[in-house]
Formats: sequence, structure tokens, C-alpha cells
Amino acid sequence: MSSRAQRRINPAQHRLPLGAVKITGGFWRERQDINRDVTIPAAARRLEETGTLRNLRRAAGHEPAGDGFAGKLFADTDVYKWLEAVAWEQTRSPSAALADWQKSVSALVAAAQEPDGYLNSYTRLVLGGKRFGDLEKGHELYCAGHLLQAAVAQSRATGDHTLLEVATRFADLLCTTFGPGRLEGIDGHPLIEMALVDLYRETGTPAYLELASYFVEARGHGLLEPPGHHGPAYFQDHLPVREVRTLAGHAVRALYLAAGATDVAVETGDEALLEALKLTWRTMVESQLYLTGGVGSRWYGEAFGDPFELPPDAAYCETCAAIASVQWSWRLLLATGESQYADLIERTLYNAVISGVSLSGDKFFYVNTLKVRQHAFADDQRSAVAGRQPWFGTACCPPNVMRTLSALDQLVATSDDDGVQVHLYAPASVTAELPAGPVAFEMKTRYPWHGTVTVRVTESPGEPWTLGLRIPAWADGCTLTVNGVEQPAGPLRRSWSVGDAVVLELPVQARRTTPDCRIDSVRGCVAIERGPLVYCFEQLDQDVVLDQTAVVPGDLVERERPELLGGVTTVDVPARDGRTLTAIPYYAWANRTVGPMTVWIDAR
Amino acid sequence: MSSRAQRRINPAQHRLPLGAVKITGGFWRERQDINRDVTIPAAARRLEETGTLRNLRRAAGHEPAGDGFAGKLFADTDVYKWLEAVAWEQTRSPSAALADWQKSVSALVAAAQEPDGYLNSYTRLVLGGKRFGDLEKGHELYCAGHLLQAAVAQSRATGDHTLLEVATRFADLLCTTFGPGRLEGIDGHPLIEMALVDLYRETGTPAYLELASYFVEARGHGLLEPPGHHGPAYFQDHLPVREVRTLAGHAVRALYLAAGATDVAVETGDEALLEALKLTWRTMVESQLYLTGGVGSRWYGEAFGDPFELPPDAAYCETCAAIASVQWSWRLLLATGESQYADLIERTLYNAVISGVSLSGDKFFYVNTLKVRQHAFADDQRSAVAGRQPWFGTACCPPNVMRTLSALDQLVATSDDDGVQVHLYAPASVTAELPAGPVAFEMKTRYPWHGTVTVRVTESPGEPWTLGLRIPAWADGCTLTVNGVEQPAGPLRRSWSVGDAVVLELPVQARRTTPDCRIDSVRGCVAIERGPLVYCFEQLDQDVVLDQTAVVPGDLVERERPELLGGVTTVDVPARDGRTLTAIPYYAWANRTVGPMTVWIDAR
Repeated sequence: MSSRAQRRINPAQHRLPLGAVKITGGFWRERQDINRDVTIPAAARRLEETGTLRNLRRAAGHEPAGDGFAGKLFADTDVYKWLEAVAWEQTRSPSAALADWQKSVSALVAAAQEPDGYLNSYTRLVLGGKRFGDLEKGHELYCAGHLLQAAVAQSRATGDHTLLEVATRFADLLCTTFGPGRLEGIDGHPLIEMALVDLYRETGTPAYLELASYFVEARGHGLLEPPGHHGPAYFQDHLPVREVRTLAGHAVRALYLAAGATDVAVETGDEALLEALKLTWRTMVESQLYLTGGVGSRWYGEAFGDPFELPPDAAYCETCAAIASVQWSWRLLLATGESQYADLIERTLYNAVISGVSLSGDKFFYVNTLKVRQHAFADDQRSAVAGRQPWFGTACCPPNVMRTLSALDQLVATSDDDGVQVHLYAPASVTAELPAGPVAFEMKTRYPWHGTVTVRVTESPGEPWTLGLRIPAWADGCTLTVNGVEQPAGPLRRSWSVGDAVVLELPVQARRTTPDCRIDSVRGCVAIERGPLVYCFEQLDQDVVLDQTAVVPGDLVERERPELLGGVTTVDVPARDGRTLTAIPYYAWANRTVGPMTVWIDAR
Repeated sequence: MSSRAQRRINPAQHRLPLGAVKITGGFWRERQDINRDVTIPAAARRLEETGTLRNLRRAAGHEPAGDGFAGKLFADTDVYKWLEAVAWEQTRSPSAALADWQKSVSALVAAAQEPDGYLNSYTRLVLGGKRFGDLEKGHELYCAGHLLQAAVAQSRATGDHTLLEVATRFADLLCTTFGPGRLEGIDGHPLIEMALVDLYRETGTPAYLELASYFVEARGHGLLEPPGHHGPAYFQDHLPVREVRTLAGHAVRALYLAAGATDVAVETGDEALLEALKLTWRTMVESQLYLTGGVGSRWYGEAFGDPFELPPDAAYCETCAAIASVQWSWRLLLATGESQYADLIERTLYNAVISGVSLSGDKFFYVNTLKVRQHAFADDQRSAVAGRQPWFGTACCPPNVMRTLSALDQLVATSDDDGVQVHLYAPASVTAELPAGPVAFEMKTRYPWHGTVTVRVTESPGEPWTLGLRIPAWADGCTLTVNGVEQPAGPLRRSWSVGDAVVLELPVQARRTTPDCRIDSVRGCVAIERGPLVYCFEQLDQDVVLDQTAVVPGDLVERERPELLGGVTTVDVPARDGRTLTAIPYYAWANRTVGPMTVWIDAR
């Protein structure tokens, strides 16, 4: 290995090998199956109907160039993210249809690649082949990044190297094009940083890491001309990444960059950069995060707001930003092993991410608001008031949800030299190769509806090893037993035997949450949470106008409603004048009708 | 007169002739003089430095076309609005410089006009003369509207018909170009409606009113393709104007359209349209209006928000929108005579409009926020956090302030058959020709700092006539005397003698204002108002962090501070822990430093 690799920060935890975790049932498995059965096939049709695949056919010369280009200039990324979902999905549930899609669309992508490795259908069809002329808005490296990520997924998930060959040829071209003394520039939309590190990890080619590091370091030095009314923070060019302490500008860009910078910090041994990113993450959590885990409080610029600027009604909370947040937290979790990162992953997945797709799997939210007022008016298909949409002009969010769900098994657990850490609770089987030997266990739970998580060891060496079960920050009073004997909450290190049973009891019962007093728009309000789920009040469940009531102290009454919204537990909350309000999980709102809704409710 | 004119709605009040009111001192006169001495001359330099005048020289062929066009495609309007200010200014305070500017720039505008009457330097220099190809974003009729308004001002104020000839030739071309059976289209940015009615009133040409009426009626039928992510409400094409009950979309556009539609309703006798506009105005005031009179709660789309969506920190409150609101209210005041419209004019002028220019007269706010947080970050020159700016890339606001201040005398008073109504209180002389004969009076006051307004009659016929002095809605407990004898509050009808003295005592002392409970972000807060002035707290006046304190009940202590901010009365407000917070008039904030500021403050 090179000296660079020797400087690597030793991460606290490691990804388990692909296939080591299988979610076998429960909340997420239901959503994964809908993703496989409805969402991914529907997207295949959309990519055709919208002309997105035709762009690639035209770029490949399989069809006459005709009347130009369909969709936004970054339309290729819809294909790449969908291909990534198709790849991961085959580790869960392979099928002939998935294999056919992978084969035919990957071949199409390969055919659209130019002889020197460049690939972008917009450049070919609209710009007459002129490359990198508009790094601010051109999205060429952003498109490349999604291609690289799809290629790595395909290689890891299926062993098919079709896209990986395309990606390495393109990445090689980027390495000879960009960098000090070459084209000194960065892309207006970060992503390439994270993607190049992924490709470096998959191929071992140091030049990819070096280019990723260059893109991170070159940022914040005014290489980009700010677009329109926006200043340089719009695309994170206002400060060097290591000097940032508060995220600013376009939320998806900021978070993809932060995730990529975290990768670079780990792989290059840059402790100072990692520390800066951890501080920035902390600032985000303390002052820029919605209760749902959603981020981005401004429609204008799709951007982070100032600290504590978190209006529920005007929240942007783009689905893609929530996904990017999960990707960043995942990298920090691996680097540090700190459960706060897994806490945020869980909060974000159960609320800000999965709210982005309908229960039916075929409609999407771009914006995940926390409040819809009486008489709200939608003048944008991204508005929650318009309801979930089958697709968008800018269709970034739907395939981002698809690849996230298809890859979700990978986030359930990690390992270190000493054992296995479980981060997400779901019915699942987990295997790991530890220094002590191979281990395996089955997890059973009805989480998030019920708080009991049972882990039964199915394989264990004679040597002791550690089983870590994450205790969420909200889980005061949880209990932990091994074979019926109570244990202190914390990692369980022991010599395990097959059949050993660990039972974690998480207190998922409904609770009231009060906001930070510096958030203007929810002062005096409470929200209802239950386990990892944020709840909300939809007008159609109430017999009083939401804007004209307030909740009062009293018991929260839970009801299991298997017939409602795919099966949820509702929470009845006492309100003024002897009324009762009924809350449902936030992720499930807007699946019956779209009307007034609120997460936070007056409590005075 | 035509039958159309006979259908006209008889307005309740009339504009006084130009020159009938002269503001002779006080708050507004100081700002008018700075406008004359600093703002208008500085703008003359800016129009040159930015290339805005050079665009017209190139379009006129006075300079080679060279390297194209400077600024935004509607840059001509900066010149027109400035010319309008130059025109009105000559009724207040004529000078050789004003006359020279008027002559030279009007000649330039005339020279840039094409033989058939069309005029737009962007069309000429960039579009190769191709007209009306992009009604959505092209702003050609918007530019025409500002030209027409400048021309009418010039004609009325100075008798110079140079621009009026240009305007009528252009308007004649528009009349033969647009309309049923011709080019059926409307402009993405309303204004032409109001301007055509102005020109109709100045020239008597019915075709201009007919075209204005067409543009109003054609709106809301999907003639425009919505731009970008925005829907048709962005430019008020979502509903026919007469069906609108809640303003939506871009605030300046919505308000210019509403003002123009009000003109059309009055001039065409369309009572139903006028009623719809009055209802819409009422909805705006009850649910879409900031305390300052500012409107537009969304940066995204520079738009009105949903009812009660009025975040103080994220407020857009564009200076131009406040000015447009004044223009609309003025038209409704004339049509109805109802003082609620004058109340809003006053609130808006003293707060949301005049905050848009620095006390020095040479720096401008585009956005008039009601709160700047701790650690706020500006990534846009329009942000209040960036401080007032000498000019903007889109420079609509500065010359809009200029023309408003130069024409302000015209808003002080109106007349009807029975008398004169005073709407704004300022040291001023007022004359009117009533059916009873000529009347004149002098107004003396130190308003808004002091509540005493003295009106002394200086000319009166023998016949009785009515003097109406507006009682602002906040002025509970005001008193009114004539020659020392108390009168019931209301219009004073009598036979006046020269020397008669009317004294109105308005209770301007500081008061606490509580918000509508449906506005989330200020729930539990109060604001301080004093007379027509909204107050705010700037961090630099406090010894406690604004975000970490709250006001408590107790006396509000006023202090006259002639040395502070050009002379203001401050208000000390008791706060938690025995502290005192000091409030200054909102319009004067950000004239020392730009830091945290808030209008609304926690009161719990």
C-alpha cells in the first residue's frame, strides 16, 4: 500500500460485507418490497416516458439525435440512481427483470460513452460536445458522480463490471483533466468527491482519492462564479471546507460535500478535517435540524437557514437532503463509532426520508413540510400542498429513495475487531467474520410499533465477542437482559453460545417533545413522538380546526390500527374544551387526502 | 364623452391638482430633501456607471452597439423610474440640474424609439429586434409601463411632452398589436395595466383604457407558460382577476396588477371587479400583512405566503412591494373614501417603504426583514444581513423609492365636492378649488414624534365646507378642537373663517401590540408601536442578548434623542431580570451597524 494509505484514519467501525445483513420482515421490509414491486418498475417506465433513456440512446447513436434533449441537463443521473437501486436490489431479491434492466441499460450507458471516457448526454446532444464550460451550473461532475456510485454498486452487488469499466475510464479522464496545473475547477453541485472515494475503495486506484481530495480542498476559494442572486455559499464556495462550522447554502450540495469530505478525511488521515466535520454536524443537529431529521429550512436556494430558523410550514426538507444527511451520518458513524450518528440516521429514515414516498410506492414528495395551513395554496409541484407526485421535472428524489431502500440492509449493523454493533432494529439475520471467528444472530422485533427487540445467537466461536445494541437517546428506562438476566445498558461482551437470547426493551410509548426556545415558530408548542417516529395531526382525523385548538396535559392514549394506513399505532392527545386530537405517524400523512397538517401543536 | 366614460364609477375622492399640497418641513420633508440632494444625483451616476444609460445610447445609435447589453433585460425601467422622480421633483424644488437631466435623458429615450413606436433597448441590442417572443419573462410591457408612467409624470409635472409623445406612439403600437383577434397575450410582469390607464387619463384616448381592460381580463386564463418550478400564480395567471380573493405569487406583480385592475374597474364602471379587489385587499390586510405594512413572506418567488404565514426573519417585504401596496391602497382610497386605505398607506410609508433607504439616502434595502438572528449569514446582496447596498443587480427598488418620495406631496390630501380630506400629517400648505370656492390651510405638526396637528385656515369662501382629518385606527382617545372648542371626532363641516384653528391631538405614545394568534412565529411576542411608527430592538442598544430575554409588563419610557439617528424618540421597555431594552423606530435600523434586530419580542 502507498504511504497515503498508511496515513488513513482507522475507522471505529466497518461495513459488514454485502449480504451479511438481511432484513427479513417488518416495517422496512414492507417498504423494501413495495420499492421492488412498485417503485423501481414504475421508475423504469418513467425513465422511458420522460425521454430520459432516449437521451442516452441518442447520445449513443442508437437513435437519431432528433429534436434534442428531454428534461433537465442532469437527467442522466435519474438513470444512474435507478441503476444503483437495481444493483443493490439484486442482493436482496434477484430477478430476471432486474438482471435484464441492469444488462440493457448498462450497455446503453456504455454505448453512450465517448472514446476518451467522457460521458454526458446533455453535453453530446445540446452543447455540441463542449465540456466543462459551465462548472457552476453544468452538473457534469455531478452526473459523473452518480455514474461512479452506480458502477461501484453494480460491481459490489452483482460482480458485473460493465459500469465499473465505464466509470474508471471516465474517472481516469477526470484525473488527467482536473487538478493543480490542469483544469483548476470544481463542480457547482458536489457529489463527485464521495463517488471518487467509493471508486478508490472499489478499485484501489490512488489517483481517484487524490482527485477527490483536490475537489474538497479547492472548494471555498472562489473558483465558481455565484449564480443569479445567490452568493458563493449557495454551492459551498464561500469558505474552505475545513473552516466551515455551520452548513450554508443548498442543503443537498452541502451534505453531499460533507459526506465526501468525511470520506477524504478518513482515507487521507486528515484528523483536522474530520474534527471540523464533526463540529459542523453537531451545529446542524443543534440548530438546523427539524424534528423529523429533515434539513433545509428555505425554499429559496433549497438551502439551510440560519441557526434556529426552522419554520415548520415553510420547511423545504428535500427528500434528497434527508438521504444525503443519512449518508453523511453513516460515514461519521463508521469513523467514530458514536451512536449519536446512528440516532440521527434512524430519526431521518423513519420520518424525513420515508415520508418522501407514498405508502403505495408510486408517488413522491420533493418537499417534506412539517405543517400545512388552513387555506394553503400550492403553486409548485414540489409543494406538499400539491400532494405526492408520480414524478418531477427535476426527478432527483424518487430514484434517491429507491437506492436508499434497496441498500438499507447495509445500515443495520457494523463490526469492529471486537464484535458487532446493531444500529437499526428490524427482523433480520446478521453474520460477521470477527477475529474471534464467524458469528451470526437473528433479530426479531415488531419495532417501531413495539419496543421489544430479541436477538438470538445462531453461531458463535468459543472466544468472547461483543454485541452492541444501540440505545436511542430517547430510550430512557430501557432494559436489557441476556437469557433473562438483566444487564446494564451497554455493549455485551461475553462468550456467547448458540441459543443465547438478548432482549432489549425500548420504551417506545408516546411522549411529548418540546422545542428549543430559540425556534420562533414552534414556541409554546409540543410534538408527539413514539419510539423513533415523529407524529403529526392531520385535519381529517380531528373534529376541531387544528389552527384553533391546543393540546392540554393528560394521558396519551395509543391505539393499534392495523386497518389504517398500512397498519399504524395512533396517539390520542387531550385538547382544550374536552376534545381529543388524534395523531398518526408523520411518514404516513397525505396518504388519504392532502389537507391541513401539523407536527407541532399549540400547548398553551 | 363616450358611453364607456359615462359608466365610470364616481370616485369618492379626487386627487388635488399638482402643486396644491406642499410639504414644508418635518419628517417627510427631510427625507424628500435627501432624496433630491443625495439619492437622485447618486442614481444619475449609477445609471451611467452600470451601463444602463449606455444601453439606450447604443439602442439609439449614439454609440456603436459594442459588446452588448448591461444589466438585466428590464434595465430600461431604472431610467424610467428615475425620470419619473426627476419630473415630480421639479414640482417640489425645480433646479437646472433636474431640467438638464430631464431634457438630455428624455431626448435619449426618444432617440432610442423605433420608427413604429416600439422601444426597448434589450430587444434592440440582444434580441435582434425580435419583439414579444417571451411574454413570460421578457418584461417588454413592464418596461413600456414604466415609460408610460414617466411620460405622464413629466407631462403633468413640467408640461414637457417629449416622453408623452414617445409614450403615446408606443401605446398606439401596443393597441394595434395586442388584443382580441390580434396578439392575444399578457406580460409576465404586470404594470402596463396601471400605466395605460394613467396615459388614458392624461390623453383621453379610449383605446388605452380598452387595452388596459383587455390585459386585466385576459389574465388568469393560462395564456402564459409558468416559469421554472413556479406555477401560474407566480405571475397571477392562475385565476381571473375578478375571481381572486387572496393574493398569490410574486408580490410586486400581484400588487401592480391589483392597482391596475382597480384603475380599470373605476374607469369602466365595473362595480363587481372593484368589490372583488376590496375583498382581496381586506384578506391581505387581515392575513398577509406584516406589522410594518410590508408584504411578501417568501423569498422563493418573492411571493405572498399562505394566510398567516408571516415569519419575521424570513420576511421578503421587498421595498417595491411596499410601494406597490401604497399605490393600490391610494386607488382604493380615491374610489371609496374609506380611511382604512389611508391607514395602510401611512403604516407602509413610515415603516416598510422608508426602511428601504438609509438615513444618508445613498444605500438601499431590497428586502425589509423584521428580524435578524444571532449568527445570521447573508449569501445574497438583497439580504438585510448584508446591510443596505448602494445599488443592486436588479435595481428596481432604489428608483422606486425616489419617485415615491418626489411624489409624496400628492398623497397628503384629497378633495370631494364637499371639502378636503387630510390623510397624512406633516407641515404643509394645502389649497383646493371646491364647489363652494377656493380654500386653503396650513398644517403644523411635529408628527410622528408628537401627536398635535394644528390646521389654520388661510382662505375660505363664505359657504360651508368640510375639513376631514383622518383618525388612524390606533388613535383611541384622540381629541379634536376648533378654535379651542372640543368637537366629536369626524369630518368638520362649517363656515370657516380665515384664522380658524383646528387642533387634532393624536395619542402617539408608545403602545404594545400583540399579534394574531394564527401567526406561528410571533406567538407570545409583542411589538412596540408609537403613533404610525413600528419600533424594533437592535442588539447594539441592549446589554442582554435579544434571543435570550423577554419583555415584562411595566411602563414604556420614551426619550427624545435629537442626536440619535437623525433625531428619534426611543422607547425603553422593561425586560426580565430587571433589565431594560431600548427600542428605536424600525425605519432607522441598520444605520449604525447591521446586527441582530427584532420587531417582535418574547413577552412570556
